[in-house]
Amino acid sequence: MADPSSFASPDHFITRHLNLHLSLDFCSRVIRASTSLTVRSLQDSLSQLVFDTKDLTIKKVAVQGQDAKFKLGTSHSFKGTPLEITLPFPLTRGQEIIVDISSETSPKSSALQWLKPEQTAGKVHPYLFSQCQATHCRTIIPCQDTPSVKFTYYSKVSVPKELVALMSALRDGELPDPDDCNRKIYYFKQNVPIPSYLIALVVGALEGRKIGPRTTVWTEKELLEASVYEFAETEKMLKYAEGLAGPYVWEQYDLLVLPPSFPYGGMENPCLTFVTPTVLAGDRSLASVIAHEISHSWTGNLVTNRTWEHFWLNEGHTVYLERRIDGLLYGENFRQFRGLGGWKELQNSVNTFGASNVLTNLVPNLHEVDVDEAFSSVPYEKGFALLFYLEQLLGGPDVFLGFLKSYLQVFAYKSVTTDEWKKYLYSYFKDKVEILDKVDWTGWMHTPGMPPVQPQYDMTLANACIALSNKWVEAKESDLSSFSAEDLKDLSTFQKTEFLTLLLLKEPLPVAHVKRMQEVYNFNDVKNSEIRFRYVILPFY
Amino acid sequence: MADPSSFASPDHFITRHLNLHLSLDFCSRVIRASTSLTVRSLQDSLSQLVFDTKDLTIKKVAVQGQDAKFKLGTSHSFKGTPLEITLPFPLTRGQEIIVDISSETSPKSSALQWLKPEQTAGKVHPYLFSQCQATHCRTIIPCQDTPSVKFTYYSKVSVPKELVALMSALRDGELPDPDDCNRKIYYFKQNVPIPSYLIALVVGALEGRKIGPRTTVWTEKELLEASVYEFAETEKMLKYAEGLAGPYVWEQYDLLVLPPSFPYGGMENPCLTFVTPTVLAGDRSLASVIAHEISHSWTGNLVTNRTWEHFWLNEGHTVYLERRIDGLLYGENFRQFRGLGGWKELQNSVNTFGASNVLTNLVPNLHEVDVDEAFSSVPYEKGFALLFYLEQLLGGPDVFLGFLKSYLQVFAYKSVTTDEWKKYLYSYFKDKVEILDKVDWTGWMHTPGMPPVQPQYDMTLANACIALSNKWVEAKESDLSSFSAEDLKDLSTFQKTEFLTLLLLKEPLPVAHVKRMQEVYNFNDVKNSEIRFRYVILPFY
Repeated sequence: MADPSSFASPDHFITRHLNLHLSLDFCSRVIRASTSLTVRSLQDSLSQLVFDTKDLTIKKVAVQGQDAKFKLGTSHSFKGTPLEITLPFPLTRGQEIIVDISSETSPKSSALQWLKPEQTAGKVHPYLFSQCQATHCRTIIPCQDTPSVKFTYYSKVSVPKELVALMSALRDGELPDPDDCNRKIYYFKQNVPIPSYLIALVVGALEGRKIGPRTTVWTEKELLEASVYEFAETEKMLKYAEGLAGPYVWEQYDLLVLPPSFPYGGMENPCLTFVTPTVLAGDRSLASVIAHEISHSWTGNLVTNRTWEHFWLNEGHTVYLERRIDGLLYGENFRQFRGLGGWKELQNSVNTFGASNVLTNLVPNLHEVDVDEAFSSVPYEKGFALLFYLEQLLGGPDVFLGFLKSYLQVFAYKSVTTDEWKKYLYSYFKDKVEILDKVDWTGWMHTPGMPPVQPQYDMTLANACIALSNKWVEAKESDLSSFSAEDLKDLSTFQKTEFLTLLLLKEPLPVAHVKRMQEVYNFNDVKNSEIRFRYVILPFY
Repeated sequence: MADPSSFASPDHFITRHLNLHLSLDFCSRVIRASTSLTVRSLQDSLSQLVFDTKDLTIKKVAVQGQDAKFKLGTSHSFKGTPLEITLPFPLTRGQEIIVDISSETSPKSSALQWLKPEQTAGKVHPYLFSQCQATHCRTIIPCQDTPSVKFTYYSKVSVPKELVALMSALRDGELPDPDDCNRKIYYFKQNVPIPSYLIALVVGALEGRKIGPRTTVWTEKELLEASVYEFAETEKMLKYAEGLAGPYVWEQYDLLVLPPSFPYGGMENPCLTFVTPTVLAGDRSLASVIAHEISHSWTGNLVTNRTWEHFWLNEGHTVYLERRIDGLLYGENFRQFRGLGGWKELQNSVNTFGASNVLTNLVPNLHEVDVDEAFSSVPYEKGFALLFYLEQLLGGPDVFLGFLKSYLQVFAYKSVTTDEWKKYLYSYFKDKVEILDKVDWTGWMHTPGMPPVQPQYDMTLANACIALSNKWVEAKESDLSSFSAEDLKDLSTFQKTEFLTLLLLKEPLPVAHVKRMQEVYNFNDVKNSEIRFRYVILPFY
């Protein structure tokens, strides 16, 4: 099955291992890379290998130690440029060879953000971080940049000696760079096969603090205390996740808190989750980001979408697990409340894209579509809604978790398609085929807009938010004295956020109301960014 | 951790993939092999590789396509001869290379049994089968012949065109041999990493018949009908095993019924279990051999003993799973009856070896010990007894199965030691550490003779055997008319076997008794080899 987002052909050969030597140049903002790929032929008479590249300079290619001919093919606007290597001898099925490629990145590499010292918390040292998902690994090194191919990797990274390098892997020591006394080499190993989009690198003035048996928090020292506090419950969440999904196979679960320019809430890089500093709410209220990234250790990192068209397999299952963890931490009502919030998120995305836009399909066709353009909450929330709907249809949370666990075991270390997922669902629930046959699969998977059915959500927690927001909307000026800090006593952070979201949907509140709200609720002093953001814009809506 | 049964050093490097070209010569009884090994260095400055060989002729070694220097080291009586390869350039940690070795087996290769046509059922064609466990793979090809190293393999096997070749792998097609019109090439792929002892090959006038969605039975055509009948319940057992142990990851579960010279009851070669033709009892009564081999798909093949000193991890857990399947098929009383039978088997082994022989330790020291010499029922039955004892101690079958499933998931695709197993047991049962601390671990694991404690067994089925055997022993000639075929009506095959075993332990029965037994029980006509064997020797004991 072809990956429309890649030039590499995983039907012809697969990459099994990468051995990387990276040398970072902060002055010219390039990484010089020597990449050794162990590749296995899947067919006889294989005479050419094609890898993905984008904005890379290829200096030299050797196959089994012999110089090999190569050329860069026609560039594509977002897919990049195929690197075509002519093999000095044809390969047979099952044969492996080592391909060595010397290359250099461009300063405009879309995977790499080079920060000046003034863009960091410490203001003294430069900083680099990568973000490869979905199709940006090819802007760092030549590779089969498709999630259908998984490989182990080993890496040596040379950086200025005052900086610390980390990767999405286990640390394997550090040594002075024998070639330059001002530099240091950091070693990394990733022994679990991963897709290219999970390669990650960060270099900066980082410090680490151990906060659990398998977790160190890494960040600039200015953010270290706040980070240590915020992520104190990581091990507890890991244990909950293991209870739900099975043993954690990555040994280490470190966290990296990035500078504010990190473009996502979190990125599930294996062994080292990347998180935005905006989660440092000071109240541990945004820990569900961590629950989400932890969950990816199974859904996404262990069982991976075969192509980005099946991205909902990664994200829908991860949101499902994240909310199961929420349920264990804060109760089943809370899980359902979060699920309902997701349904609204989905509605927002459908409104933004338009209800007939095929990018709102659960399984979109990405032929000649830039994956980044297709990104939205649809795979997350339509995916979750489908799984939550199936959970209710098939016998409830326990029964559905049995399926999820089994799915994870069957497809662990592999990449899957929606069809394979569905086939396994049918085989697991072979006694419930009649129920499954009544699901409108085409409606759910291959039709734009909102899903054909809305699951049932428990409304207890939502109703409290609705009641309070209605009370504010309906209040006359003479009623304002009836509000007090007590109103929020039983509301969680997420309910407060929902309360403000509901108000934002109404006519703007009179100034006296907003003033009174500040007096009694003091949202101005809340550090949580989700609450502050909504509160700050409230007078303008 | 070193493997005392191997010269290869898995601490320095590991093999990740084998690409094999084998050509069989039935006239000279040799296999000419071209073996490409993908190896990964685990250290910097690695300048030498050592592989295991035994009775092999090494013709040529190339590293990354360049001829490399090699020599055979000092031969050891049972470990064989280390093949020492000097690398043309030193390797760094994480670096992979391809090593090509041309070699030839000796006609006395201890892994290979070459049968003349007259030794087969069909009497027309020759036959070859291999048995690599424990340390015989090194007599076929050079390899890291230690279960601590696991790799995938691809293989092409050239054989005379009238014969069929099978391996412990998925079939990947067949073609005429382009070099010889009288020969054919069979292709195989094993994409799940396996230890060397699970490489297996069989070549003969084989025919196959599909008997289930993932099972074909292979044997000479003379035995095909009987085999198809005998193994009809294979898919049912596979499903039971999946329910107990998790998804079956090997895709195919084929069965090969060998000629009578096969030295074991069964061998769990992945994708293709080898079984002795003596299991063709005609009554499906010896299917527990299949339950055992199926169980190895998890315990042994997926989670593998790191060295042969930890063989009980393979066999104890496999017997445990086998008996859980027995329990599902024939009831909990039957499982307990089989467990009690195992305790007696263990007693026999302890008697044979001597109660102070350290080879009766659950975890023996195999330094300078030939693994074949150490083979006995101890790892099977002392291992089972420990697990059954722990099951009772920790809360019963369901609770213990939770541990077993989790252990299988954590260590899937890996090799483990007893210490790692025990550490995981303690971490899984962290609420029951006090109970675990009361187990006499040294007594169970590192002390010869019978275990320090005997588990409790349900005696219902055993008592029926005891009662009937006592009745025969105590019967006077005038009582003989009281016996009838009815006596055996409620006894299973295993109980009949046990009844005869008990009689064998007593004074010989008078001739009139034996005659009467034949009249009423007609054991002479039973095809089941376990019953027949005991019955036939009864007059001599």
